[in-house]
Amino acid sequence: MTDLCSLRLNSHRSGVDIIDQTLLPHRLEWLGLDSLEAYCESISTMRVRGAPLIGITAAFGLATALLSDSTTGGFHSAKEALLATRPTAVNLQWALETVASHVLPLEDSKRAAAAFECARFLREQDIDSCSRIGEFGRSILQDLLLDRGAEQLQVMTHCNAGWLATIEWGTALAPIYKAHEAGIPVHVWVSETRPRNQGAFLTAWELQRAGVPYTVVADNSCGHLMQQGMVDCVIVGSDRTAANGDVCNKIGTYLKALSAKANSIPFYTALPTSTIDWCCNTGADIPIEVRDSGELLSISGMDEAETFRRVRLGGTGSRGHNPAFDITPAELVTGLITELGLIEAGSAGLSRLRSSL
Amino acid sequence: MTDLCSLRLNSHRSGVDIIDQTLLPHRLEWLGLDSLEAYCESISTMRVRGAPLIGITAAFGLATALLSDSTTGGFHSAKEALLATRPTAVNLQWALETVASHVLPLEDSKRAAAAFECARFLREQDIDSCSRIGEFGRSILQDLLLDRGAEQLQVMTHCNAGWLATIEWGTALAPIYKAHEAGIPVHVWVSETRPRNQGAFLTAWELQRAGVPYTVVADNSCGHLMQQGMVDCVIVGSDRTAANGDVCNKIGTYLKALSAKANSIPFYTALPTSTIDWCCNTGADIPIEVRDSGELLSISGMDEAETFRRVRLGGTGSRGHNPAFDITPAELVTGLITELGLIEAGSAGLSRLRSSL
Repeated sequence: MTDLCSLRLNSHRSGVDIIDQTLLPHRLEWLGLDSLEAYCESISTMRVRGAPLIGITAAFGLATALLSDSTTGGFHSAKEALLATRPTAVNLQWALETVASHVLPLEDSKRAAAAFECARFLREQDIDSCSRIGEFGRSILQDLLLDRGAEQLQVMTHCNAGWLATIEWGTALAPIYKAHEAGIPVHVWVSETRPRNQGAFLTAWELQRAGVPYTVVADNSCGHLMQQGMVDCVIVGSDRTAANGDVCNKIGTYLKALSAKANSIPFYTALPTSTIDWCCNTGADIPIEVRDSGELLSISGMDEAETFRRVRLGGTGSRGHNPAFDITPAELVTGLITELGLIEAGSAGLSRLRSSL
Repeated sequence: MTDLCSLRLNSHRSGVDIIDQTLLPHRLEWLGLDSLEAYCESISTMRVRGAPLIGITAAFGLATALLSDSTTGGFHSAKEALLATRPTAVNLQWALETVASHVLPLEDSKRAAAAFECARFLREQDIDSCSRIGEFGRSILQDLLLDRGAEQLQVMTHCNAGWLATIEWGTALAPIYKAHEAGIPVHVWVSETRPRNQGAFLTAWELQRAGVPYTVVADNSCGHLMQQGMVDCVIVGSDRTAANGDVCNKIGTYLKALSAKANSIPFYTALPTSTIDWCCNTGADIPIEVRDSGELLSISGMDEAETFRRVRLGGTGSRGHNPAFDITPAELVTGLITELGLIEAGSAGLSRLRSSL
C-alpha cells in the first residue's frame, strides 16, 4: 500500500534498517541497527515506536545479540535488556517469548539463524495481520458511511497507529487506508497527541503521503468536535489489552473514549491479537510507563531557516509529570478490530476469541 | 496577594500599561496602550487574555478612543472595533455596555473622563470580585481537605484563570491562592492547555512566583490522573456561562468535566457574575471562536542559547483546525463559584442568582 515500510531487512538479511522516527516529519532517514545496544537505544528513545513494531524490532535485536553470544545465559541477558526498554507494550514480551520458544531448544550454533528466521516470520505475520485488520475495519467504515448517509466519513484517531507503528498498513490507520483505496471518502481528524506529537508528526505525514484528507487538531479539541457532530467514529490502536477488554493505549485515549460514549459515537480499537495480555485480568494490571518530563517541557521543530531546533516551552524551573499511556475501560469500547474479525470488548468476547486461537 | 497586577494605570491615569502575556514565561515586559488600534491589537493577538481582563482592557480602550473622538458616532465605531476583537468572552460586551450606559447620556466633552472613571471602577470591582471568589473557593477547598483526610489537596486546573486573566487574584486560581495563604496544603496539576499553552506558560509561572506547589501535565494526562485517584477537585474559569449553567471555557475543559464526572470528582467553575450571559439560554447559543491554525502548527520557546524562537511542529503542508473554546454542559458542573457565593449550575440556581442581582 506504500512504497515504504518502517523496518526493512538489510542486504545481508542479518540485521535491519529502521526509519528514525524522531526525525519525522522533517527528515526521512534510515538507520542501520547492528548491536544489542543500538536496538535497545532505538526502542527506548522511540526511534522505533508503536506496539507491533517494538515487538518485531526487539525480535531482530535478540537475533543480533545471538550472533555474538548464543549461550543460554547470553540469550537471557539480551532478552532482559530488550524487555527493560519499554514497560507497557506487551508485544515486546510476546515477540521475545516467541523467539525464545523457537531457539532455546536448539543447540547454540543454530540459535542466531533460527532467531532471524523467527523475527522475519513475525515481520511477515504482522504485515498480514494489519492487512486483515484493515479489511475488517474497511467494512465497518463502509457500513457506517451508508448508515450516516453522509458524503464523507469523519474518522478521528489518536497518536500514530499507522504503518510507522507496525511494518505496513498499521492498526488504526489500516481501515482508513483500505477504505481510501476502495474509493470510500474518508477524512481523518488527527489529534496532535501531546507530549510527543505522534499525531501531528507521524500520522499527518503518513496520511499526506497517501493522499488521505486529514486535519490536525489539538487533543483538547476532540470533545468539542464530537459534541458538534463532526465525528462519525473513533479508531485508535492499543499497546496492551487486558483479558476483560480494558484497553491500554497512548495517554489521552481515555478522554476520547469518554467523549465518544457521551456523544454516542462508535469507538473502536484496532489491534493484532498479539497485543492482548491474557495474564492481565483488567487494565489495572497493566504497568503504565512514566517518561522523562523533558518530553513535555521542550519540543523540537523547524525554525524559519529550516534548522531543526529544540526549544524549552515552560519557565526554567518548571516541573512536569509525563505518564505515557492510560486505560480505557472496556465498557467505553464499541469493539476490537483484530486480524480475526470484530471482537466484542468484554470478558465474554475475549474468552470466545481466546478459545479460537 | 502579589507584587504585580496584569494591568496598571499609567502615571497620567489616562491610559494603561499591560503585561505582554505573549512573552511569558520567558520575559516580563510592560507595554503602554495609547490608541484604539493598540488596544484592539493587544486583545486580538492575546497580549491580554482572560475573560475579565479582556473586558476591563476594552473599557480603557473605549475611554482612550473618546479622547480623540467623543461624538456618539465615534463612540459606536470604537465600541464595534473592540467588540470585533474576540467573539466568545461575554465580559467584553458587558464592559463596553457598562461604559456606554455611563457616558452616552453625557455631553461629548465629559465622556472621555467619565469613561476612564468607569473603567477604573470596573478594574477595582474585578479585584474585589476575584478576592470574594477566592474566599468562597478557599472554604470549599478547606472542607474538601477535611473530607479527604489527606495531607495535601490535589487541585487540577486548565488554561490560565489566575491574576493574569483578571487584574489580581484570578478566578479559578483565587481559591488556590487564598488557601495557600491560609496554610492549607495545596498542590496544583497544571494542564498544559494546547495549543497556546496558557497552563504551562502562564499558570505555572504564576504559581511558581507565589510559591504554590504545582506540576505541569499534558492535557492528555488529565483523565488518567483522575482515574488514578490523584485529583481531589477541578477548578476552571469561564469565558461565558449560559442562563442554564452551561459553561463555555478554553478548549479541553469539556473533556476534563467528562472525566471528573466519570470519576466522581467535584468540578467547579469560578467566575464573576459578569461572565454570565443571560441572553444565552444554553451553551449552544454561545459563539465559539476559531483561531488561526498556525497557533497549533508552530510554537515559540527558548532555544539552548536562550534565544526566543518560533518552530514549525508539523510538516510543511499540514492542515489544522483550531477552535478556542468548548461548552461543558451544566450537568457536569458541581457548582459555580461567584463573588456572591456558590451557585448551583442549572437553570434553577441561576434564576435565583439573577433575581438577587
